[in-house]
Amino acid sequence: MAAKGNPENLFLVVHGARDLHLENYPIHEPGPNEVLLKMHSVGICGSDVHYWQHGRIGNFVVEKPMVLGHEASGTVAKVGSLVKHLKPGDQVAIEPGAPRETDEFCKVGRYNLSPTIFFCATPPDHGNLCRFYKHNADFCYKLPDNVIFEEGALIEPLSVGIHACRRAGVTLGNKVLVCGAGPIGLVSLLVAKAMGAAQVVVTDLSSSRLSKAKEVGADLVLQVSKETPQEVASKVQGLLGCKPDVTIECTGAEACIQAGIYATASGGTMVLVGLGSEMNTVPLLNAAVREVDIRGVFRYCNTWPVVISMLASKTVNVKPLVTHRFPLEKALEKGVGVKVMIKCDPNDQNP
Amino acid sequence: MAAKGNPENLFLVVHGARDLHLENYPIHEPGPNEVLLKMHSVGICGSDVHYWQHGRIGNFVVEKPMVLGHEASGTVAKVGSLVKHLKPGDQVAIEPGAPRETDEFCKVGRYNLSPTIFFCATPPDHGNLCRFYKHNADFCYKLPDNVIFEEGALIEPLSVGIHACRRAGVTLGNKVLVCGAGPIGLVSLLVAKAMGAAQVVVTDLSSSRLSKAKEVGADLVLQVSKETPQEVASKVQGLLGCKPDVTIECTGAEACIQAGIYATASGGTMVLVGLGSEMNTVPLLNAAVREVDIRGVFRYCNTWPVVISMLASKTVNVKPLVTHRFPLEKALEKGVGVKVMIKCDPNDQNP
Amino acid sequence: MAAKGNPENLFLVVHGARDLHLENYPIHEPGPNEVLLKMHSVGICGSDVHYWQHGRIGNFVVEKPMVLGHEASGTVAKVGSLVKHLKPGDQVAIEPGAPRETDEFCKVGRYNLSPTIFFCATPPDHGNLCRFYKHNADFCYKLPDNVIFEEGALIEPLSVGIHACRRAGVTLGNKVLVCGAGPIGLVSLLVAKAMGAAQVVVTDLSSSRLSKAKEVGADLVLQVSKETPQEVASKVQGLLGCKPDVTIECTGAEACIQAGIYATASGGTMVLVGLGSEMNTVPLLNAAVREVDIRGVFRYCNTWPVVISMLASKTVNVKPLVTHRFPLEKALEKGVGVKVMIKCDPNDQNP
Amino acid sequence: MAAKGNPENLFLVVHGARDLHLENYPIHEPGPNEVLLKMHSVGICGSDVHYWQHGRIGNFVVEKPMVLGHEASGTVAKVGSLVKHLKPGDQVAIEPGAPRETDEFCKVGRYNLSPTIFFCATPPDHGNLCRFYKHNADFCYKLPDNVIFEEGALIEPLSVGIHACRRAGVTLGNKVLVCGAGPIGLVSLLVAKAMGAAQVVVTDLSSSRLSKAKEVGADLVLQVSKETPQEVASKVQGLLGCKPDVTIECTGAEACIQAGIYATASGGTMVLVGLGSEMNTVPLLNAAVREVDIRGVFRYCNTWPVVISMLASKTVNVKPLVTHRFPLEKALEKGVGVKVMIKCDPNDQNP
Ligand SMILES: NC(=O)c1ccc[n+]([C@@H]2O[C@H](COP(=O)([O-])OP(=O)(O)OC[C@H]3O[C@@H](n4cnc5c(N)ncnc54)[C@H](O)[C@@H]3O)[C@@H](O)[C@H]2O)c1
Ligand SMILES: NC(=O)c1ccc[n+]([C@@H]2O[C@H](COP(=O)([O-])OP(=O)(O)OC[C@H]3O[C@@H](n4cnc5c(N)ncnc54)[C@H](O)[C@@H]3O)[C@@H](O)[C@H]2O)c1
Ligand SMILES: NC(=O)c1ccc[n+]([C@@H]2O[C@H](COP(=O)([O-])OP(=O)(O)OC[C@H]3O[C@@H](n4cnc5c(N)ncnc54)[C@H](O)[C@@H]3O)[C@@H](O)[C@H]2O)c1
Ligand SMILES: NC(=O)c1ccc[n+]([C@@H]2O[C@H](COP(=O)([O-])OP(=O)(O)OC[C@H]3O[C@@H](n4cnc5c(N)ncnc54)[C@H](O)[C@@H]3O)[C@@H](O)[C@H]2O)c1
Ligand SMILES: [Zn+2]
Ligand SMILES: [Zn+2]
Ligand SMILES: [Zn+2]
Ligand SMILES: [Zn+2]
Repeated sequence: MAAKGNPENLFLVVHGARDLHLENYPIHEPGPNEVLLKMHSVGICGSDVHYWQHGRIGNFVVEKPMVLGHEASGTVAKVGSLVKHLKPGDQVAIEPGAPRETDEFCKVGRYNLSPTIFFCATPPDHGNLCRFYKHNADFCYKLPDNVIFEEGALIEPLSVGIHACRRAGVTLGNKVLVCGAGPIGLVSLLVAKAMGAAQVVVTDLSSSRLSKAKEVGADLVLQVSKETPQEVASKVQGLLGCKPDVTIECTGAEACIQAGIYATASGGTMVLVGLGSEMNTVPLLNAAVREVDIRGVFRYCNTWPVVISMLASKTVNVKPLVTHRFPLEKALEKGVGVKVMIKCDPNDQNP
Repeated sequence: MAAKGNPENLFLVVHGARDLHLENYPIHEPGPNEVLLKMHSVGICGSDVHYWQHGRIGNFVVEKPMVLGHEASGTVAKVGSLVKHLKPGDQVAIEPGAPRETDEFCKVGRYNLSPTIFFCATPPDHGNLCRFYKHNADFCYKLPDNVIFEEGALIEPLSVGIHACRRAGVTLGNKVLVCGAGPIGLVSLLVAKAMGAAQVVVTDLSSSRLSKAKEVGADLVLQVSKETPQEVASKVQGLLGCKPDVTIECTGAEACIQAGIYATASGGTMVLVGLGSEMNTVPLLNAAVREVDIRGVFRYCNTWPVVISMLASKTVNVKPLVTHRFPLEKALEKGVGVKVMIKCDPNDQNP
Repeated sequence: MAAKGNPENLFLVVHGARDLHLENYPIHEPGPNEVLLKMHSVGICGSDVHYWQHGRIGNFVVEKPMVLGHEASGTVAKVGSLVKHLKPGDQVAIEPGAPRETDEFCKVGRYNLSPTIFFCATPPDHGNLCRFYKHNADFCYKLPDNVIFEEGALIEPLSVGIHACRRAGVTLGNKVLVCGAGPIGLVSLLVAKAMGAAQVVVTDLSSSRLSKAKEVGADLVLQVSKETPQEVASKVQGLLGCKPDVTIECTGAEACIQAGIYATASGGTMVLVGLGSEMNTVPLLNAAVREVDIRGVFRYCNTWPVVISMLASKTVNVKPLVTHRFPLEKALEKGVGVKVMIKCDPNDQNP
Repeated sequence: MAAKGNPENLFLVVHGARDLHLENYPIHEPGPNEVLLKMHSVGICGSDVHYWQHGRIGNFVVEKPMVLGHEASGTVAKVGSLVKHLKPGDQVAIEPGAPRETDEFCKVGRYNLSPTIFFCATPPDHGNLCRFYKHNADFCYKLPDNVIFEEGALIEPLSVGIHACRRAGVTLGNKVLVCGAGPIGLVSLLVAKAMGAAQVVVTDLSSSRLSKAKEVGADLVLQVSKETPQEVASKVQGLLGCKPDVTIECTGAEACIQAGIYATASGGTMVLVGLGSEMNTVPLLNAAVREVDIRGVFRYCNTWPVVISMLASKTVNVKPLVTHRFPLEKALEKGVGVKVMIKCDPNDQNP
């Protein structure tokens, strides 16, 4: 389907299941603490695809048209009256979740849990897959000269990996199991290695996904198919020579949660990044008597400055994650691969 | 059934399900790093009753006769050649779990997770419900003059409460939900209050158990019967005016684990103290997206010195927990109530 | 010196060293996220007295007239257009430090360290010793019905004690040394006990201050005079029977910092609450090789909701801290004692 | 000076200041929980040189002849009767500090603080610069096939770096200042980078030492000479573009401790690894009001398994640290450079 409307001012909008449009919306002035951004690169996330395919994710339902996109970077076009740390022309990465109120979650530094958070492309909040977008200035971060726009856009998925590894307590010398070699499994792998994990083993059903995992740094991979969870755990232990200290579950599959519990070393931690069914049947007794902690991961907080430091100092290399690029006008054509990047600036389609 | 054998030298021994004896065993000399103890008071735990009734708990099976008892205190009778910190006549509390090897769990301070641990009255290790018992001297702690034997014996269940509250991160001003008002629920309540919890609500099926909870310090109680887990969670929130920061699950019932997840505040923690079925069906997605941590509790570590300080300074009062006392000779008669104390010294049956 | 001006609208203003006035200032409308408060009770802090006596504290200099007062509670008179959680008539406690910008310190939950923080009665920011005062609504906390205004005002000093005990890691069964029995030493004592400290020993030069410490819950006190720091440490160890796990330094005196290092157990923590000279000569090598951590305490963060829970549930009793009360009109007369409370509402001078 | 005695059985022994000998001592059988080791590689540490030059370090005085050496690896020759995890022929690294008693420091996992610890080459305990040496088997760690003896010996200095970085809380994206580019500064640098530090700046007086720091991975170096501590802090901030989150002080010089406090970001941590004078004059007030924690580092605990995992997986490369090698017979000739390795096995002088 071809793009409709004024090409100077396009928004990629989902109206419901399998109902996606490129439309023109008005562009608003930034409020006192906001900035207007000329968008450059926006990554496509599994959730964008899911809203497009199903019109919902769990209880989040697309009830009115919603702009997609939340993995984004761009250039400051205008700043609100109170904004001090940014000026027009600055290249920035956008943290898509910005609390609307300073509630107790915000005050203690866990603003991702604030029930009043604004979050790009989660109904009813609009995303930033468009030419121009305005955002809370405190959640736009200036990119140093040696960090490019696509790296800026990839801070978002990398942040999921950081939050997962932080909550898992990944630390020097750890053995780590990552279940799932999708984009989220890959960023978790990248971050675990950057934090000093000695060995990371990645599992997946798909051998091509595991090849990608190898390419971005997995020490070991395990292709699973019909094994029981106990068998998967036992194979992981065989590969590592011991049980992993940490398991990062990135599939949402019940079988993987079960395998993760059996696999994790006593006193270790499994984090649940993958989001699956409401109810799960799991060997909680096994976890309890071996003090294997089970901890959720909901997005992230306090990660953008960290990733920017890492990107600036080349501590982590995210570029291999991008496998496809399309101009915004062609965003209606379905992308495949690890990470599709949409280029929103018609005059600059570089990475 | 009456006691058999030499009354100077009795052991309460389980041979299998519903097969309990008072017998005479030889008394051995303490090894170089051991002490021989003349036992004074030994509390009866749910696990003692369970081994007696069923001959097993999960995979732990009574395959040969086993002495019961692990909540104990007594007087040093003899010391091994290398023991420096104890001498005959010292009154001590016994930590029943003592690692046999200095493995990596021990080195990092989590010796309760060591697979090679010796633990009183867990098959095949003998307990201390007897007249004389020998133990690793490093896990016998001298009681100050103002701490009595029964307080010394109660350090064991209190330690479960401490380990639970530590792993739950209970801290000043917390709202806490304790599921279950059995002995373990009560000690968790006592410890949570001692750590500064502002309000503790305790749930149980039994109103008499809840009365006891009130008596030992529960701010609020909730008698549950046919409510769904969501309804229980909602009633707890109603009582506290907010969701609890921490839930301490002390029943092992699946319904309580479910209610605990729904009830706990975003960013909070539920600890699993109760030990129930191998597999449990639980709303893990709800826990994950609200970052409610689920953490197991396996016994305890590093608690005896803490409890002794607390008992010496009257920071906590455990005496109301003891409801019945029997001499060792009568231990074969079934006890009821919160905590039965067996008096092992025929010449001193005082608390 | 008598009060000047319209008694309906007084402000206690320091113009410089020993230059204090009761004056009339205009009363401003609250901004969108602010509330206007009718002040009720304001405690006098050592810093208020210091600004009055010296016109400065360290680098903070009173360069233009400044309203004093930062330990305060009152009633909401008007709310700004965006305020949702408060309404006129609500009784509130005021957190005097409110960040002006959402910088990285705020985002990680340590907003007390934000360089752009507004703080009542720290030059050039005005305090709330007056009839009417407006403040950031997010830092005004509704008091439950069973918490009175003076308790609300005392949340501020108590917060220093909480932040100190948190950073010190005070936990169940700890032995704690508190140096100094001024208001800050006393609140640290109160909080340490509420967190489960088994024994707290308080030192001071003054026997009357130590009597007060005993009254509010010190287990042990030590009057010091000409002892060396090592001698003080040794006496503390004698009183407790061991070295304290935690030392809370609340004098700012170099001798106490030295004694605190020598006194603290290996692996323990000393927090510096007292603020003394710029440079200090201390036995750092002793601290380093015994891994005694030295941690500063700058005001507090994330304490108001905690203290309100504690006050509502009677987990802590702060009422004995108030020793004197004066109406605002008489605030120019010097107060003495532990805590002077200024009553700002001419029609309600109750606690 | 030439080696004396039977070349099959040499020990490098310090008798007092500048009084070093190669002597023959009897070789003892291992106790039940010990192993006898045929030594292979032993690194020379600053402390070895110090005992040789001065006969003492602080209160540790060489009062009777003491064998030097504590950075060591070798091959198991014999095992005691209770040893299960090792067998003759195993290649092992030796953790030189092994607690003699299971006291409370050991139980909580901080055995390095145990006052009863045995520590190689700290008077009066003998070290392992010799042909054969026996040690507590629990503190000998089997090396995997792909880790060589010299790497095994370097686990000891690397452990100081790990313990320093752990206590400093180094984490992903951190900016780190390391003061001093001696062996200890270099291992701290290596570990900080392995833990994900984005940028590490190293300071030293010596440009050749800073070149080595660059070689092993420093992002930035700063040669200091006559600057004030404030000037050093300001130059560090200039290099990093912000204050470092963490400072690792590895010189013991008072000027560096001062500079470290001024340099460290508010809310950050400075660890004291360098051991200097008993008393130090430092800007504690500056640290206190900015909540810059000051934490000591005393050797290490729980590091050998971690380093072995890292070496096996090539997560860290320690080989460039070794600059010189000598056979044991020539150990009396003074070594220079970053790290001198003494080769104790006359038949195998390989790395
Ligand atoms: N918690 C959060 O904040 C957060 C944020 C982003 C994504 N997510 C979730 O993370 C998960 C992963 O996201 P993604 O974008 O990488 O998804 P994806 O679908 O691209 O990847 C999932 C991978 O898991 C593999 N997999 C499925 N079942 C498996 C099994 N039984 N064993 C091994 N591998 C199996 C699949 O083959 C696939 O490669 C999703 O559930 C997503 O909803 C969570
Ligand atoms: N993790 C450990 O190290 C450890 C140590 C000791 C005990 N435990 C376990 O702790 C649990 C409690 O021990 P206890 O000695 O107090 O047992 P208990 O049987 O005396 O007490 C359990 C209480 O839970 C109540 N209960 C049951 N179902 C309930 C429900 N649906 N809702 C509310 N209350 C319910 C019961 O009425 C009872 O009062 C047991 O499962 C035991 O195995 C664990
Ligand atoms: N860090 C912060 O955020 C913060 C907040 C409030 C107050 N403070 C500081 O806390 C300190 C205490 O405040 P306060 O209001 O209680 O002050 P205060 O002056 O009322 O009390 C200090 C007490 O210390 C005693 N003292 C002095 N020298 C002593 C010594 N050598 N040994 C034992 N006791 C000694 C005094 O007798 C006095 O009772 C002050 O330095 C103040 O600046 C810091
Ligand atoms: N805490 C522990 O457990 C532990 C363990 C091992 C070593 N140490 C200590 O660590 C320190 C370093 O050990 P090392 O073997 O690397 O010593 P070293 O003497 O080889 O290195 C110290 C370096 O600091 C530099 N330096 C000195 N003054 C300086 C200044 N003002 N500014 C910048 N650099 C300066 C020197 O030029 C030298 O390169 C020593 O004090 C040692 O005692 C402590
Ligand atoms: Zn995404
Ligand atoms: Zn028990
Ligand atoms: Zn104050
Ligand atoms: Zn060394």
